[in-house]
Amino acid sequence: MKNLKTKQILITGTVAFDEVETPTGRSGKIIGGAGTYIGIAASLLTNKLALVSIIGEDFPKKEIDFLNQKNIDTSMIEIVSGGKTFYWKGKYHDNMISRDTIFTELNVLEKFKPIISNEYKNSEIILLGNLHPLVQEDAISQSLNPDAFIILDTMNFWMDNAWEDLQSVIKKTNLIIINDEEAEQLTKKKNIFNAADKILKMGPTYVIIKKGEHGSLFVSNENKYLLPAYPVTRLIDPTGAGDSFAGGIAGYLANQKDISFDIIKKGMIYGTLFASFCVESFGVEGLRTLDSKKLEERFKIFKSYLT
Amino acid sequence: MKNLKTKQILITGTVAFDEVETPTGRSGKIIGGAGTYIGIAASLLTNKLALVSIIGEDFPKKEIDFLNQKNIDTSMIEIVSGGKTFYWKGKYHDNMISRDTIFTELNVLEKFKPIISNEYKNSEIILLGNLHPLVQEDAISQSLNPDAFIILDTMNFWMDNAWEDLQSVIKKTNLIIINDEEAEQLTKKKNIFNAADKILKMGPTYVIIKKGEHGSLFVSNENKYLLPAYPVTRLIDPTGAGDSFAGGIAGYLANQKDISFDIIKKGMIYGTLFASFCVESFGVEGLRTLDSKKLEERFKIFKSYLT
Repeated sequence: MKNLKTKQILITGTVAFDEVETPTGRSGKIIGGAGTYIGIAASLLTNKLALVSIIGEDFPKKEIDFLNQKNIDTSMIEIVSGGKTFYWKGKYHDNMISRDTIFTELNVLEKFKPIISNEYKNSEIILLGNLHPLVQEDAISQSLNPDAFIILDTMNFWMDNAWEDLQSVIKKTNLIIINDEEAEQLTKKKNIFNAADKILKMGPTYVIIKKGEHGSLFVSNENKYLLPAYPVTRLIDPTGAGDSFAGGIAGYLANQKDISFDIIKKGMIYGTLFASFCVESFGVEGLRTLDSKKLEERFKIFKSYLT
Repeated sequence: MKNLKTKQILITGTVAFDEVETPTGRSGKIIGGAGTYIGIAASLLTNKLALVSIIGEDFPKKEIDFLNQKNIDTSMIEIVSGGKTFYWKGKYHDNMISRDTIFTELNVLEKFKPIISNEYKNSEIILLGNLHPLVQEDAISQSLNPDAFIILDTMNFWMDNAWEDLQSVIKKTNLIIINDEEAEQLTKKKNIFNAADKILKMGPTYVIIKKGEHGSLFVSNENKYLLPAYPVTRLIDPTGAGDSFAGGIAGYLANQKDISFDIIKKGMIYGTLFASFCVESFGVEGLRTLDSKKLEERFKIFKSYLT
């Protein structure tokens, strides 16, 4: 591994305030956002990564310092003077899967235009967290690396409101990661495997469909892989699980020579573990307190459950 | 394998008429029943098995002949002269999981009292298909083999209507196989892993919780195993999937020297495959037309999806 050139990861995604209520607790106002979860998860496996985002002056400096300590380059996080950071509040239903949004304050996010610095225009991996497809497209268009491996996350909101723009981004994507409901909405196919096959026809080489507590499936035209979720018995807050999963995959890929179906499979195992640590605490706490010893212990346990 | 003594399997369960409507089709009046599915599935892996059940004179002789051709001893299927066979009709919802019962004609099943012949009182494996817990207990009580491996299937109806009787049977069970909703109802635990742990405390050494299209999980006090479902893209009729799964496990165990956690794991793979063939056709047709070539092909494909 030491002779490998670590791939650089460019991440776009929200850096935000979240607040969640679950059937058993309340988080209060904490930091969150897809970019934050993705960045921290990826940083647990690699150290050449940058986050492109936008925040207001109200975002705590110590949290940016924390990201920097994790080797996440935050120089492309625009701080809008006098601006307020994106703030979302949600309430989870009893099943801890579906949730209602209590409020969404877009704030500075309304004017987000990602600007990729020269240092990151040749990133080998680009991870597009959930954002308007036009913003995701904008980030791709600034890449000077035609071989960049593009990972896309999105959600049903953009299928309802920006279908054509989303299709355009999907066409340029190497790996799309979405959940089962989103896959159904995107393809009008109820069967998840038929949905995955249809998404492959939209452009991506690789499709991962997340099923929450039921794990995930991964398909290419040639292969399939079925991965259960890690058995979490103390579910506190599902927010960020999918972002942690995607970040873990990207972080794992960064230190591999090639990107192949088999390599992504192993990345999914790390992604699954990060998601499991994530949901065991409110917000990013589960990832913040994660170290490689805890990670490798759970990796071994998880592998023993699968074979 | 040739030097092993094949274990004898004693199965109790319904042999019945079924009729199902799904969003895409109708089966008409066909044969079904837990005992039928279990027996056929098990017979695909072993040849020392018997079915204890009850039918009316209206049950087609050619179907009994078919069971006999599968090496299933049907001498303990009581034929009630002038009686009518148990007949259930159901209609599946769009999700192909939940269903409404349109009618249930218990008919001869009302008077079912299993009578185990001497030849089967020492069976090494007893598989109790879904029936009143008192009937299941009756079958156990006739066993003269204190080391018999007892596999139990049950359902929420008995949790509502025969709680104490069910607890008594569960206590005597080595392996219980139930679905996720039933596990929640049995334990009042929403988390499936916590539910499994609580069921272990009720007596069984092994607990399998089925999650339909999301696979199954298997726990003992020492181990866990997570198995996805086989990716079925042409779901026709889910009836009998759980019974085929249980039958496959029993059939696999019959030809193993010992019964251990690792051995049951492999049995679950066969059970999962039988369930996948089962749901691809109405009724038992998917199992009826299954041969070892088709089975081994799918086994290889499935293994490649898991590793």
